[in-house]
Amino acid sequence: MDLAIQLDKEMALRVQTVNQFVENYLSEMPLPQGAAIAELRKSMLYSATNGGKRFRPVLSVLVAELLGCPIEKVLPFATAVELIHTYSLIHDDLPCMDNDDMRRGKPTNHKVFGEDFALLAGDALLTEAFMLIAQNYAENGFLMGRLTQMIAEAAGIRGMVGGQAIDLRAGQKQMTKEELEHLHRLKTGALIRVSVEGAAVIAGAKPSEVESLRKFGEGLGLAFQVADDVLDHGEKDQDVRSFTGIIGLEGTKKYLEEISTSTLAELHKVSAEAPMLEYLISFNTSRKH
Amino acid sequence: MDLAIQLDKEMALRVQTVNQFVENYLSEMPLPQGAAIAELRKSMLYSATNGGKRFRPVLSVLVAELLGCPIEKVLPFATAVELIHTYSLIHDDLPCMDNDDMRRGKPTNHKVFGEDFALLAGDALLTEAFMLIAQNYAENGFLMGRLTQMIAEAAGIRGMVGGQAIDLRAGQKQMTKEELEHLHRLKTGALIRVSVEGAAVIAGAKPSEVESLRKFGEGLGLAFQVADDVLDHGEKDQDVRSFTGIIGLEGTKKYLEEISTSTLAELHKVSAEAPMLEYLISFNTSRKH
Repeated sequence: MDLAIQLDKEMALRVQTVNQFVENYLSEMPLPQGAAIAELRKSMLYSATNGGKRFRPVLSVLVAELLGCPIEKVLPFATAVELIHTYSLIHDDLPCMDNDDMRRGKPTNHKVFGEDFALLAGDALLTEAFMLIAQNYAENGFLMGRLTQMIAEAAGIRGMVGGQAIDLRAGQKQMTKEELEHLHRLKTGALIRVSVEGAAVIAGAKPSEVESLRKFGEGLGLAFQVADDVLDHGEKDQDVRSFTGIIGLEGTKKYLEEISTSTLAELHKVSAEAPMLEYLISFNTSRKH
Repeated sequence: MDLAIQLDKEMALRVQTVNQFVENYLSEMPLPQGAAIAELRKSMLYSATNGGKRFRPVLSVLVAELLGCPIEKVLPFATAVELIHTYSLIHDDLPCMDNDDMRRGKPTNHKVFGEDFALLAGDALLTEAFMLIAQNYAENGFLMGRLTQMIAEAAGIRGMVGGQAIDLRAGQKQMTKEELEHLHRLKTGALIRVSVEGAAVIAGAKPSEVESLRKFGEGLGLAFQVADDVLDHGEKDQDVRSFTGIIGLEGTKKYLEEISTSTLAELHKVSAEAPMLEYLISFNTSRKH
């Protein structure tokens, strides 16, 4: 129990580091003059600093630490991924998508700044993600090309946006387990995976290590979705897009154990000891909300 | 007159080359399986191949030709800029922005595919633009970094998106000539400028040539907006955001001549003869629609 508290504290420190980098970048990026542009920056900052868990960028930081890479090297990349995550939430909340008024206990971006500015803030955040990569990794063309391709693949039609398209068109048809996995892999898994894989590449990991960490990231992303379904069982058992609706509660719990075990095994191929990253897996398996 | 017809034909050939590249890229990019993702690709293609003038990518091609650079080298960059232009039109047409039902004589993207898919198609096109840069220019890290930064600056809050924000918040307050120029420079000028500047950089132009071509692109972009106001005079004379509303019809015509002359002068610093690019300037000054 003491260990969990200590790890929670360690995690909170990394969240703080990420928060600071994200806020500094968006607050300090030089912009043209004018009240409208200042307001658009405010709208970007509103959503990018609204108390999110920073799951993806903290993952990047932990992977860097695991591989003995100074975290300063991965922070711009980690922030790029977080800005993409933020933009996706703003666009998802829009009336033409999920039409959500609240997120994390606060009014959604379009409720505060209007739909037009929410749309633009999302567009600007996505664009800024690639700016961050170009500003920080261009001295190594190979690295920059790889990071940009990885992010574009994970964020665009081959990844997150593609997953949203599947989700929107899935309707009430019962999904198979494979279809549901495919959906999660694209919609949420891709960006989680890339936050691990990109950090490994920046840290100069060997190809075999990158491959293992990629699988670790993929497994972790899927495990979170499966754990969500376990937590929401009862509510979601009839859901055509939940694992509990497809393989039942007990089957889903067993599946979660399997994924967690194989994900941990991938991590251990890279390092026998990785307390923080191990903690993320066990935390997920046992979390209550 | 014969010369104009010949130049029109030459222009049409380049439009064709660009059309083919854009269509091939979007049709052939490898995607995950599934009907929803296929539909999203269709939505991207619908707007990216709807008979646009291809002004920006053709500019890139012409600059490459002027500098003796094989056009294959600039086509991926030119297409990236065109995909960004396309995404901006899709998002602009959405009900929460301009709420337009028709574009170029056809129903707008959201009228055909729904608002949700239109939003996603725009997001995916923007992301894909950076994929194109990474896939084609990564062998030269300096070039790739510069192109990505240029595009992100021209497309994001420092450029096009920032200009849209200014436009949305401008209301009915009378703008000064300087404010209107600032708006155009960001909203439409930045992407036109970058299609010239990026091609010059790819072609390996000297810094002084890049600088002159950058000013040429900037001037050309502004000249198009000023010419629009001349053409729409009567309609727009009372418009708080038109040059004719600020400096009158005669003043605006004179201003257009000034910009065209200085823009031509920048071009001539790079090359004494540039018939196609000169033609764009004179075509703009004398166009009737």
